Amino acid sequence: MRKIYVIGIGAGDPDHLTVAAIKAIGRVDVFFLLDKGGERAGPVGLREEILRQYAAEGHRLVEIPDPARDRTTDGPGYPGAVDAWRTRRSLLFEQAFAEELTEGPEGATTGAFLVWGDPALYDSTLAVLEEVLARGTVRFDHEVIPGISSVSALAARHRVALNRVGRAVQITTGRRLAQGWPEGVDDVVVMLDAQQAYLRHLDTDPVIHWGAYVGSEDEILVSGRLSEVAEEIGEVRAAARERKGWIMDTYLLRRD
Amino acid sequence: MRKIYVIGIGAGDPDHLTVAAIKAIGRVDVFFLLDKGGERAGPVGLREEILRQYAAEGHRLVEIPDPARDRTTDGPGYPGAVDAWRTRRSLLFEQAFAEELTEGPEGATTGAFLVWGDPALYDSTLAVLEEVLARGTVRFDHEVIPGISSVSALAARHRVALNRVGRAVQITTGRRLAQGWPEGVDDVVVMLDAQQAYLRHLDTDPVIHWGAYVGSEDEILVSGRLSEVAEEIGEVRAAARERKGWIMDTYLLRRD
Repeated sequence: MRKIYVIGIGAGDPDHLTVAAIKAIGRVDVFFLLDKGGERAGPVGLREEILRQYAAEGHRLVEIPDPARDRTTDGPGYPGAVDAWRTRRSLLFEQAFAEELTEGPEGATTGAFLVWGDPALYDSTLAVLEEVLARGTVRFDHEVIPGISSVSALAARHRVALNRVGRAVQITTGRRLAQGWPEGVDDVVVMLDAQQAYLRHLDTDPVIHWGAYVGSEDEILVSGRLSEVAEEIGEVRAAARERKGWIMDTYLLRRD
Repeated sequence: MRKIYVIGIGAGDPDHLTVAAIKAIGRVDVFFLLDKGGERAGPVGLREEILRQYAAEGHRLVEIPDPARDRTTDGPGYPGAVDAWRTRRSLLFEQAFAEELTEGPEGATTGAFLVWGDPALYDSTLAVLEEVLARGTVRFDHEVIPGISSVSALAARHRVALNRVGRAVQITTGRRLAQGWPEGVDDVVVMLDAQQAYLRHLDTDPVIHWGAYVGSEDEILVSGRLSEVAEEIGEVRAAARERKGWIMDTYLLRRD
């Protein structure tokens, strides 16, 4: 049967690749690339480097276009907008698999998606594949290779643990943090924050461990009491975004 | 200056090792092993395999004894008991570094700790090193190499994401889950659960994705609506623990 790997390739450092990821990449015939409209122009260079180093000769790259997504929808409509977009995306995945992955007496073609960080955190590839399988038009087996998430990479670079002894840690989005500090936890990791939601929490003045492009050559790290470093983070963040055209940042907030 | 690596070696599959971890292991002169009193007899085999494959010739193994820990303390006294134990441990670390890591004109010795999973999740190595540094008796530089956590490995084997679209996920302990479902989240990852705390949540009947020894040859996975699989998990868990003498399990609970 056709096989599709969903491979976590880490957060920006090519050395974050695992042995399992390297082995899987070497077995792949077709790498499916998601056209993100140039939004994430930066990390594409790392993906190319990984393919050059580890992909088998004769592998192909197939681009799957990204359906337009209504990014104006906020608040309660947001998950619905994501669902609709995911369905349109799954139809494009299905078409790509049908055209590019063959099954026959001489064996089946192996496909793969290379996912930034870990496929288990804020990535839609697995959900889209489930949707394709649920429709039942194209059959395939899929396997997930875990990767170093930007959360693990951030903690490593700051040499801190995510949790305190016997305590919980919550991983959430900038959108949610902007609505209030999560209940029941004092340690919060924030991803996908386009709005610098940490600024809403200057009153409790947590410690922040912030990082952008973590693990890559462009890595920027800032740590400290939020009231003391918020301005610096705002400045280096704006400057980096201006320089590179995109930003990918993550942070840990630790309340007393 | 003396250098100490804290290296995440993944959750049980030797192929979860990253290229960065392999490179670091190859540069290490002294691996510090924590004697856990045979409690985790199992994973030691994997560590030995990793050293055999990737450590440089002439590397040494140095065992640091584990100070006795008051495991009867539960409830509010628990973090205090851990703190006291950590201080005793840091004195033993300090002694081992002073004896085993030399600094001189011909260069310094490089030490390392190999940590299961990811050093950022429920591991005390980083906190103990901070304590040694704070005392100031032994100086060293340390670097953290992130690893595939049992959380990432669990999600990968079940082929699920940890979070739902735009939602948060909390990582917590069995001890905490036994006190009640965490506020504000419907997706909860549970580690260090010695008491099968999921049984307290049969009333809300979440979906559970459970795994033991994830990534290793002994891996056991069970998934389903909690009311339908709780008994099976209890049985396979008890049998595995009996057979191997220890158990390391993790699970994701997903409430409707």
